[in-house]
Amino acid sequence: MGRATARRRVVRLRGDTTGARPDALAAEEPLEIRVGGEPLTVTMRTPGDDFDLVAGFLVGEGLVHTGDTLAALRYCAGTDEDGANTYNVVDATLRGGAALPLSAHRNLLTTSACGLCGRDTVEAVRTHVRWPVAADPLRVAPRLLYGLPDQLRAAQRTFDSTGGLHAAGLFDATGRLLCAREDVGRHNAVDKVIGWALREGRLPLAGHLLLVSGRASFELTQKAALAGVPLLAAVSAPSSLAADLAEELGLTLVGFLRGESANVYTRPDRVTAGPAPAPAGPPVHQHAHGG
Amino acid sequence: MGRATARRRVVRLRGDTTGARPDALAAEEPLEIRVGGEPLTVTMRTPGDDFDLVAGFLVGEGLVHTGDTLAALRYCAGTDEDGANTYNVVDATLRGGAALPLSAHRNLLTTSACGLCGRDTVEAVRTHVRWPVAADPLRVAPRLLYGLPDQLRAAQRTFDSTGGLHAAGLFDATGRLLCAREDVGRHNAVDKVIGWALREGRLPLAGHLLLVSGRASFELTQKAALAGVPLLAAVSAPSSLAADLAEELGLTLVGFLRGESANVYTRPDRVTAGPAPAPAGPPVHQHAHGG
Repeated sequence: MGRATARRRVVRLRGDTTGARPDALAAEEPLEIRVGGEPLTVTMRTPGDDFDLVAGFLVGEGLVHTGDTLAALRYCAGTDEDGANTYNVVDATLRGGAALPLSAHRNLLTTSACGLCGRDTVEAVRTHVRWPVAADPLRVAPRLLYGLPDQLRAAQRTFDSTGGLHAAGLFDATGRLLCAREDVGRHNAVDKVIGWALREGRLPLAGHLLLVSGRASFELTQKAALAGVPLLAAVSAPSSLAADLAEELGLTLVGFLRGESANVYTRPDRVTAGPAPAPAGPPVHQHAHGG
Repeated sequence: MGRATARRRVVRLRGDTTGARPDALAAEEPLEIRVGGEPLTVTMRTPGDDFDLVAGFLVGEGLVHTGDTLAALRYCAGTDEDGANTYNVVDATLRGGAALPLSAHRNLLTTSACGLCGRDTVEAVRTHVRWPVAADPLRVAPRLLYGLPDQLRAAQRTFDSTGGLHAAGLFDATGRLLCAREDVGRHNAVDKVIGWALREGRLPLAGHLLLVSGRASFELTQKAALAGVPLLAAVSAPSSLAADLAEELGLTLVGFLRGESANVYTRPDRVTAGPAPAPAGPPVHQHAHGG
């Protein structure tokens, strides 16, 4: 594998001049996700960390909650015209799989809301969140937040060569980067990070921060909540429904995190400006009680 | 309707100071798309131009090819807890609907590829494209391309207030902006533009240019091809599979269109640098034959 990039010939236009040269593009391939042998969905993703992607996807759909729920992951079927494995089909085996209402998930979690207004959609997700996100006592200083994007950016190796990938990063409460993943799809980058955490036995992600390189949609907020993350930060804007879901769940939603500025849309009490209660110095663990 | 933005209270962090103020967020709501009363999919979108969105989505899935194929669109069902219509469910009635293999589309076009490698996925789309995109004689000068992003940006009214929307714009061969649409989902913005064109009786979009504000994925390239667009330009990077599909279909794919520079990944013959064959002056119609 390691097919995160692909080389293509490109004609470069610069003003009125043209020139041809090879260029690296972010790789995109379909990945079919199966559960117990039954096809669930197909996502277009950048190959690599596929097991993490599948594990994280299943968390975001409410099908898997902890590492215990996921019995096995394996590549299967999917051969190309030469009979070689395409590594584009992953089958997940769940413990107690018989009890899973898989048929109800064929249209995936967010699409099963009955009345289909934003409030119903928020409610549908809320009922699937098992973790006490609202009660999470995480507290961070603004300057800890300001330091996150540079760390994530430094970890984006494929972006440097292609300029074409979204990224997601998981941080602990001291602002230390634990896991960074890239993908052509921002939801896949988040799935890969959460799947990594699941497979490391770290779910729920109480006291952690999740940063995404782009915008914060409803879907990304849902994924954060189902993994138990109390703070989601985005470099760009959130949507209205992302803010509504974060408000409903008691999740801190940060947007426009750039340089030394940010907007906090929900639960700003977790971002403590002014004198820090902990000893002065560089950003430190401020996992205070209460919240 | 007109619910493209929603106001929320936000806490702004600027260095070590904080302040609260109202802020406008890009609205995001679920939209269920039905065909002949049967639910097909749900997309999270910014409300507005919903009929265009549904029409364009159906084009991108190969279910609708021209305005003749689409008999009617209407809002249906979907009431909120007060019994009011949520305007979040649209039902499309197709002519000759009985002939449509809708069941095969439940997982949507790109997901029905059999071997599920990139090549199979490209092939699955190719068989659905009815328009002679490869033979389209469109030719444009680089300076015509350079002028497109500013036109699209100027048309993005909601972005100005929220900073949070993707945009897509349709241009004719002289570089004139015909239609611009915004959405929290970039695929939705493209669907809205293509659906507008379908409902205006303009499909196939021979001799037209489509510009997207973000990256060019396989999915967006598929949508352009199924609408008959011969040139897709993106402000950011394309993916490998987007370039593969464009190559297979003979569609010109332009990426990193910024300032006076761009990369042309496929069919660069349509972008003619050097002295223009047409009279000098501002960008003019250069719909030459051949190419």
